[in-house]
Amino acid sequence: MTVGYGDVFAQWRKGCPEVWSAYSKHEFVAGLGDGTLPRDAFLRYLRQDYVFLVHFSRAWALAVVKAGNLREMKMAASLVHTLINEEMKLHIGVCSAAGIDANELEQTVELPQNTAYTRYVLEAGFSGDFLDLMAALAPCVMGYGEIGVTLKADHASPVYRDWIDTYAHPDYQQLCVDLGSLIDKAVQDRLGVDYRQTGKWTQLTRHFEIATALERDFWDMGLHG
Amino acid sequence: MTVGYGDVFAQWRKGCPEVWSAYSKHEFVAGLGDGTLPRDAFLRYLRQDYVFLVHFSRAWALAVVKAGNLREMKMAASLVHTLINEEMKLHIGVCSAAGIDANELEQTVELPQNTAYTRYVLEAGFSGDFLDLMAALAPCVMGYGEIGVTLKADHASPVYRDWIDTYAHPDYQQLCVDLGSLIDKAVQDRLGVDYRQTGKWTQLTRHFEIATALERDFWDMGLHG
Amino acid sequence: MTVGYGDVFAQWRKGCPEVWSAYSKHEFVAGLGDGTLPRDAFLRYLRQDYVFLVHFSRAWALAVVKAGNLREMKMAASLVHTLINEEMKLHIGVCSAAGIDANELEQTVELPQNTAYTRYVLEAGFSGDFLDLMAALAPCVMGYGEIGVTLKADHASPVYRDWIDTYAHPDYQQLCVDLGSLIDKAVQDRLGVDYRQTGKWTQLTRHFEIATALERDFWDMGLHG
Amino acid sequence: MTVGYGDVFAQWRKGCPEVWSAYSKHEFVAGLGDGTLPRDAFLRYLRQDYVFLVHFSRAWALAVVKAGNLREMKMAASLVHTLINEEMKLHIGVCSAAGIDANELEQTVELPQNTAYTRYVLEAGFSGDFLDLMAALAPCVMGYGEIGVTLKADHASPVYRDWIDTYAHPDYQQLCVDLGSLIDKAVQDRLGVDYRQTGKWTQLTRHFEIATALERDFWDMGLHG
Repeated sequence: MTVGYGDVFAQWRKGCPEVWSAYSKHEFVAGLGDGTLPRDAFLRYLRQDYVFLVHFSRAWALAVVKAGNLREMKMAASLVHTLINEEMKLHIGVCSAAGIDANELEQTVELPQNTAYTRYVLEAGFSGDFLDLMAALAPCVMGYGEIGVTLKADHASPVYRDWIDTYAHPDYQQLCVDLGSLIDKAVQDRLGVDYRQTGKWTQLTRHFEIATALERDFWDMGLHG
Repeated sequence: MTVGYGDVFAQWRKGCPEVWSAYSKHEFVAGLGDGTLPRDAFLRYLRQDYVFLVHFSRAWALAVVKAGNLREMKMAASLVHTLINEEMKLHIGVCSAAGIDANELEQTVELPQNTAYTRYVLEAGFSGDFLDLMAALAPCVMGYGEIGVTLKADHASPVYRDWIDTYAHPDYQQLCVDLGSLIDKAVQDRLGVDYRQTGKWTQLTRHFEIATALERDFWDMGLHG
Repeated sequence: MTVGYGDVFAQWRKGCPEVWSAYSKHEFVAGLGDGTLPRDAFLRYLRQDYVFLVHFSRAWALAVVKAGNLREMKMAASLVHTLINEEMKLHIGVCSAAGIDANELEQTVELPQNTAYTRYVLEAGFSGDFLDLMAALAPCVMGYGEIGVTLKADHASPVYRDWIDTYAHPDYQQLCVDLGSLIDKAVQDRLGVDYRQTGKWTQLTRHFEIATALERDFWDMGLHG
Repeated sequence: MTVGYGDVFAQWRKGCPEVWSAYSKHEFVAGLGDGTLPRDAFLRYLRQDYVFLVHFSRAWALAVVKAGNLREMKMAASLVHTLINEEMKLHIGVCSAAGIDANELEQTVELPQNTAYTRYVLEAGFSGDFLDLMAALAPCVMGYGEIGVTLKADHASPVYRDWIDTYAHPDYQQLCVDLGSLIDKAVQDRLGVDYRQTGKWTQLTRHFEIATALERDFWDMGLHG
């Protein structure tokens, strides 16, 4: 399945094929698709993902702080808005339907894989610049887009179809396309057209690869705790 | 004129009466009220304020990053959203009506008083925690609320009435009340009910006073360049 | 074994007895003491600890940035100096004697437990203030002091005696005492004498407990990879 | 007078000739050279410079946090060490000889030009990466080197010779050469050999120019308060 989330993303993804595959075709993902994922694994994932969303929103807010122009600020601010006001509400609803009330959700104890991933992204952002943050944030945003559209195309079982539809949805796909385009421009704006000849580029690919590995570990955590 | 923006703000304000007065009753403010403020001073202020808004939005985004709970995150994120999507658009409109097009606005060269103020606030936030950032942000948000409502009550001249109405507006007043309440809770949550006995409190009052002085200098810049 | 690294440390430690015990009396630690720790576990630990030291030095440098006065700056700067110019050199020497040359050491691939711990500490520091950083840094500095002096007192086997002697050494013990005293003062300076009544204190104890758990996971990584 | 502090510095300097000249040949500088600088201007400068040194040390500590390799970490850490343990002591000595005791020095009220400069540098570092910080720090380190060696070559009057000798000293000159070489490598490591074709470079030149202008304002403050 080819997805078009921009040139930079395509290169980052191609630069770590094994890790990307381990993440995007993870056993957890396969289980979402064919409906064999155990319910308690899905609920463990949802609880942790709620905590993740808090830090992910903070990371996108940090992207507003680190943005280099109004377009970047607006995109990042719009993501913060969506994450805090829609995505979290959606999450609370899904969890509530699954018998986890908002209060219990708030009390979730963060598992180590969650800590590792969220703090890695935030620290990459604090210590680096806007590009470092984008490279660490891209695997989650774009990976979910790719997973959603791939599972949808594979005629997923109805069990986790709501989850799949969220990320296969044209709105979410458009978000990935827009972000890909923003990242393409952000990289060229700062590193020039020959950006792949720079050491900064090497560092960005490293952030992308490590964040992808941490996403893979996040699925492991969903499966095994 | 008494305004009710919470206990903490009331104490911060009372803690630096001279600087607060120099800011909130500045010659520039008086000129907005009676309509005697020279037009080019107002336009110089508007241009600089546009640049200021960019950094102010970034500082509120940093508040999302530094927030301690969802309520704080939401309030800060909502301010980022309003600043970027409404306040800046409003600014572009006002400037455009005054003959400064969006392009020219983008090219504004930041004056030193603007640099001093915005970087002070952002650095206080980066180096400190959520409370440090709130103390540095409060003089602007609440001061404009107080100035708006005071000028309005004094039967301001029509010359700058649009500007005055923005900040005297019930929506803006409510924002100040809500932020005041959030700050009251944020301070008590972290420093306890006897927060005024702590060294952290002393540091917060210092941030508030310095940011107020930098607001006063911002008006000076409006008047004299 | 009672160690006197200050009141605040004593309370933090007492506040998470199980996690502290899991860390300070870990199987890895016991193996260092009686000499049964497998050599390759020790070398795996050393390699990872080298990467850790880089980020730990960065975290102490961040403490210089976040310090509230000259005494705090000097203590943190002195630790940065010692870590970069002595501790790392020592590490390179130990590894070299064990057949791992400096080049190989530089190429070490960071394991997830290492990522989790170092990024948690750095992010706590970036997002919080000086106290948050101290609470996240204390388990490592003081824990190693306690482990060193405890193993020494228990008549450790000669196998890992060099490692033990480093942390049981009066110089290292004095460092822990000095840091404990600095933290005691830093907490009282900011939160007052009734600091335990504040919400900030609750947050500090949480940082301490999580960092301690991440230290325990670091030993796990040493044992099992 | 040509000074050899590296290629990048040479280009940054050449990119803002008027501001650089306004800073490096400022009336304050001329007065240091021919001895006509009023004593109270020098003392005002010294007091403010002490406050400056605190924030400058913090900015160099932030460079340790943001460094990309051991060489960069060591250089930055060594500067933090020198600033805190030598430069500040030297300052206290000079001020003491001039009748300003350490206590009075600690109580110095920071003037707005000082706030603007220090916070600009720190914020550039927090919001950007290692290169952004270097570009904002270079005008001070290298400018003082250039001023020192230029005044020395011009057969300065003995009145402020101690100050001049500090920065004309081979040790300080070597520091500038080493930093210049580190910056040259840091820029090429990240942006490639064609670094001047990148947008990041444009941003770095802007940081350099603004920081230079803020240095010029710092001299103004010394002269006029």
